[in-house]
Amino acid sequence: MLNERLNWRYATKKMDPSKTVPQEKLDRILQAISLAPTSSGLQPFEVIVVKNPEIRAKLREAGFDQAQITDSTAVLVFAAWDNYTEARIDSVLSMTEEQRGMKSDTLTGYFDRLKQSYLPRDARTNFEHAARQAYIGLGLAVTAAAFEEVDATPMEGFEPEKFDEILGLRERGLRSVAILPLGYRANEGDWLQGAKKVRRPMEDFVTVVD
Amino acid sequence: MLNERLNWRYATKKMDPSKTVPQEKLDRILQAISLAPTSSGLQPFEVIVVKNPEIRAKLREAGFDQAQITDSTAVLVFAAWDNYTEARIDSVLSMTEEQRGMKSDTLTGYFDRLKQSYLPRDARTNFEHAARQAYIGLGLAVTAAAFEEVDATPMEGFEPEKFDEILGLRERGLRSVAILPLGYRANEGDWLQGAKKVRRPMEDFVTVVD
Repeated sequence: MLNERLNWRYATKKMDPSKTVPQEKLDRILQAISLAPTSSGLQPFEVIVVKNPEIRAKLREAGFDQAQITDSTAVLVFAAWDNYTEARIDSVLSMTEEQRGMKSDTLTGYFDRLKQSYLPRDARTNFEHAARQAYIGLGLAVTAAAFEEVDATPMEGFEPEKFDEILGLRERGLRSVAILPLGYRANEGDWLQGAKKVRRPMEDFVTVVD
Repeated sequence: MLNERLNWRYATKKMDPSKTVPQEKLDRILQAISLAPTSSGLQPFEVIVVKNPEIRAKLREAGFDQAQITDSTAVLVFAAWDNYTEARIDSVLSMTEEQRGMKSDTLTGYFDRLKQSYLPRDARTNFEHAARQAYIGLGLAVTAAAFEEVDATPMEGFEPEKFDEILGLRERGLRSVAILPLGYRANEGDWLQGAKKVRRPMEDFVTVVD
């Protein structure tokens, strides 16, 4: 069931700009990303949903002119926290207490240890850790799109600094790490459409220790 | 449908060692991981499936004594390539040519540019890039487990160097980045079971630019 959907999807190279992904599909995809598990539940990333045509034209320039950036219905930009801070970790603790309607010494102690461990680390280590969590979300987004029969192209081929500037991410303490245009495949002109999905044989990819 | 499964799952804190995940479910979960999209299709990680009880006892010692490591049916260890090398990238090119039954200058050119871009980079940058791809696979694994009604606990709380040594990963050019015990939740003794799933409100997590 899941694997059938994963076999259906592919990194769409040409999208049909005349077809629009309905908002309720976009909403369910965003919900799936939010449901992605993350380390200690910190969710150290955000998603920017770019629909605006002028902004997308600028992003396309900073994205090696890849047409999916403007031919899609929306471009999801995954933006990771540039660092862990006391305020960010404390806000997750408060939110957890609020949503569960309780405080506990166990929880406070857990977050205290988290701060002791994360805050002394250099910004790059923390950013890389946050970026990995964003990629869990990226995996969920691609899967959710496949369930909605929406095409998607996971991309790293763009200039993150320019994306950050166009979208004003740096001042929010965010850095773009991956993007995902969502739309519908064009019937013609996509060289990858229909090509065999290439994967390492399972015996090379998986080692069993039993 | 997908989101219902994602809402069902949680990071299981106590597993029932008397219940065993059937092999066909493990196989479908591994298949889903293999179907995860990765940057340029490199699949720069492997999955070690540890079932052996003695080895798992050692891993538990290197995993802050977390009981899911031995109470699960199997522990998946996600191990990323420690670096990109010419041989590794060339092998993906050969495999692509073989599985698609064709060679093309476009494909060769693409992989040449990939090598020009990746090989001069330092090992840490390449490893971090590979680790991110492994996390896409981790996201798929968690999702696939939820579809199989198998419980799973994504974990970073372990000592990667010790895991690498116990599993002989360094000599294979691999480094463990995350683990995922797969099993069945115990009916009692799991403090997180039944707790409200905590997530940032969608309006904080998502920014729309339209």
